[in-house]
Amino acid sequence: MISKAKIKDIQSLQHKKFRQESNLFLAEGPKVINELILEGNIQCKEIFALQKWVDSLETNFHQLIEDKLIVVSAFELEKLATYATPNNVVGVFEQKASLPVNVKDQLTLVLDDIQDPGNMGTIIRTADWFGVKNIVCSLNTVDIYNPKVVQSTMASLGRVNVVYHELLPWLNQNHDEKILAATLNGKPIQAFNHVNGAIVLIGNEANGLAPQLILKADEEITIPKFGNAESLNAAMATGIILYQLKV
Amino acid sequence: MISKAKIKDIQSLQHKKFRQESNLFLAEGPKVINELILEGNIQCKEIFALQKWVDSLETNFHQLIEDKLIVVSAFELEKLATYATPNNVVGVFEQKASLPVNVKDQLTLVLDDIQDPGNMGTIIRTADWFGVKNIVCSLNTVDIYNPKVVQSTMASLGRVNVVYHELLPWLNQNHDEKILAATLNGKPIQAFNHVNGAIVLIGNEANGLAPQLILKADEEITIPKFGNAESLNAAMATGIILYQLKV
Repeated sequence: MISKAKIKDIQSLQHKKFRQESNLFLAEGPKVINELILEGNIQCKEIFALQKWVDSLETNFHQLIEDKLIVVSAFELEKLATYATPNNVVGVFEQKASLPVNVKDQLTLVLDDIQDPGNMGTIIRTADWFGVKNIVCSLNTVDIYNPKVVQSTMASLGRVNVVYHELLPWLNQNHDEKILAATLNGKPIQAFNHVNGAIVLIGNEANGLAPQLILKADEEITIPKFGNAESLNAAMATGIILYQLKV
Repeated sequence: MISKAKIKDIQSLQHKKFRQESNLFLAEGPKVINELILEGNIQCKEIFALQKWVDSLETNFHQLIEDKLIVVSAFELEKLATYATPNNVVGVFEQKASLPVNVKDQLTLVLDDIQDPGNMGTIIRTADWFGVKNIVCSLNTVDIYNPKVVQSTMASLGRVNVVYHELLPWLNQNHDEKILAATLNGKPIQAFNHVNGAIVLIGNEANGLAPQLILKADEEITIPKFGNAESLNAAMATGIILYQLKV
């Protein structure tokens, strides 16, 4: 049994305002909870789960979480969950403190108003695959602790440092690496290989990069088009660019 | 005013069974409707729209659709739409007949049980960007006329030929190009450049490729990993592979 006040507190974490006040966020489902716990960079505060999930745990994993574990009924779990069909377990975790960003000898992503939570999750996970350590987001970029972002980012959330900043002043302060802006009429990305350090600017899904950010770039870069689609999805473009810069 | 029976017919198109029986599908919102009409490869049957959308149309575009146009109230539109907040217009379109697939001198994608509609839409749109003309899907792959797939594929739906087939017999019949299977322990994809013809196998989001399909491949190929993420999203992997094969 959990109290009504507790249920209300947890439900409030679906809203950015309350996540920021409490510095907490929600994760949902065995796969995500599992990954976050085992990854270890993100502190778990509480886990609400059905008995059948608890019974399915291996002993080692159970020991990791037993002091955070609260067994709830299916009825209670449904109230805590973001998704219509909650799957066995919901966890409350602590937001990671943002670390200072050092751009030197690194690939750093800069996101200008990415809005779609699925895109954001895919970008963070793909950045993690390609060894990107830091992502700098404009203040209007979707919150990485939005439940939908968490669902698609999974444990990469604990490994990639994401900071929110006004982008123009941030770019003005960071001259240690070249700035590359992803646009539709730049230099073909194939010209860039084994790039060990660069700041890569990625624009909003509908509007692309703000013109004043493009002006800050040392070069505009473009993914070659061989067919007819009008554009590539923002997350897809990010992944292809990171791949090309690394190999 | 539209009749109750009509509303029911249109609502039924949210279900695969009725889409298959009628050979029709739904598209929603000004952007998608616009792209599909202008692309021209997909026949429009009916458009249900608010007067304010009709008033906003340019004359040329209005002429293209005027014989299909039915003005409805916001209340009626809400009943027709898949999404909670319908945006001004819903269209009924005819499914395109599948064309025979010729693999010779082409990149052909083969999808093994891709389940997520967003992934499917992104794959079709990215295939269109890279000039892929044909996609062969296993019978359990999500329906391309699912409303969520349509929303993320947009006009690429009219340009890429998608067929559904049992994959093993299909692969047994198509020996004109090398078969490349995307797995986690194959040859690094950087070894493949300017590939003019190949059949590329992409696996299910959670389970990857079925072992019997991998056995059919001439080579397994892998995207190099520089960081820690456990996997790449299936659509992302498809996009990066297509990029590398083309350039």
